Amino acid sequence: MDATVLDTLFKTIASRKGADPSQSYTAKLFSKGRGKIAQKVGEEGVECVIAALSEGNEELVGESADLFYHLMVLWAEMGVKPEDVWAELAKREGISGIVEKASRPKE
Amino acid sequence: MDATVLDTLFKTIASRKGADPSQSYTAKLFSKGRGKIAQKVGEEGVECVIAALSEGNEELVGESADLFYHLMVLWAEMGVKPEDVWAELAKREGISGIVEKASRPKE
Amino acid sequence: MDATVLDTLFKTIASRKGADPSQSYTAKLFSKGRGKIAQKVGEEGVECVIAALSEGNEELVGESADLFYHLMVLWAEMGVKPEDVWAELAKREGISGIVEKASRPKE
Amino acid sequence: MDATVLDTLFKTIASRKGADPSQSYTAKLFSKGRGKIAQKVGEEGVECVIAALSEGNEELVGESADLFYHLMVLWAEMGVKPEDVWAELAKREGISGIVEKASRPKE
Repeated sequence: MDATVLDTLFKTIASRKGADPSQSYTAKLFSKGRGKIAQKVGEEGVECVIAALSEGNEELVGESADLFYHLMVLWAEMGVKPEDVWAELAKREGISGIVEKASRPKE
Repeated sequence: MDATVLDTLFKTIASRKGADPSQSYTAKLFSKGRGKIAQKVGEEGVECVIAALSEGNEELVGESADLFYHLMVLWAEMGVKPEDVWAELAKREGISGIVEKASRPKE
Repeated sequence: MDATVLDTLFKTIASRKGADPSQSYTAKLFSKGRGKIAQKVGEEGVECVIAALSEGNEELVGESADLFYHLMVLWAEMGVKPEDVWAELAKREGISGIVEKASRPKE
Repeated sequence: MDATVLDTLFKTIASRKGADPSQSYTAKLFSKGRGKIAQKVGEEGVECVIAALSEGNEELVGESADLFYHLMVLWAEMGVKPEDVWAELAKREGISGIVEKASRPKE
């Protein structure tokens, strides 16, 4: 299995936008609006931190999956295409395969 | 371009574990230890929230890439395999392609 | 009303440490351990962000109260005294009343 | 020393709103706008988590002070009065001094 599961999952998520909130968790999340979706992303980021520092690898796997899922709901809500994120990561990874500086310059 | 850039990037990241911290940002991050790596994950989660609610799509793409990168550094630090996260996501996505409930039950 | 409600609340919180988890929310939180208490602090920080950017002042008041409460549970769990935080804030506030630099130097 | 340092600090912070950004850290923070101020609150929440789980009490004191400071900058930016937060905490603390349920009901 490889990371293309993310592309498949994103398509499913995007198809739930505007669907009946009573039919799926994803449709319900869209119906709550951008603020609540973003809140889940922030909270799942915190849960990854907790999993890494006071739980363990199994929990980190689960929380990472939760974080990816909710982040992709936020992308779909905002109109961000996964391809744009993959392109951004490829740019950082670089032709030479050397991650010199993954973060963009911060102040 | 598809999500397999994540698998490629993870290999590069993992290869930096234990490398000379002066040679790459990734090696430097590993040298700071688990707490600082987890901190970056939490902070990038917050920055995705800010990008979505008060900046815009270009910023969300950039912050999402930052979040994925730092989360994969945390996986490499902890010994989590990307395949385990992809399998977890596939399990949630389900045979029928219906995301009934992406999050595991929370209290 | 002034901020001394925090000192009063802290005493109440500290008195719940080791109490019967079925008798109060605070005692139940202590019984879950440091990881879960810290998780609540991180999540309430995110909820303050969401309240400020996509809800409003009433919600920010509520989430700020939640954040203070959970942070004080974390202090009690760790053995941090409120006085130490007040002293740190007073030191930053400075003799001249000028907040020149509230944050400690970060890298 | 008691928590009234927060009331004093809030007055100093509020007086920096609209002041010359080159003269104080607080004025500079106001000049960056609501999104950046909220981002600092979220990040300091994460840093409290890290301090508690992988650093220690001295760091938690420092990060708690950072969090309070930035949260009060956010209050001043939004027009939230500290008194409203103290009143909310007093309400929760209750007449009997029993914190039965500090958090408001969440879904």
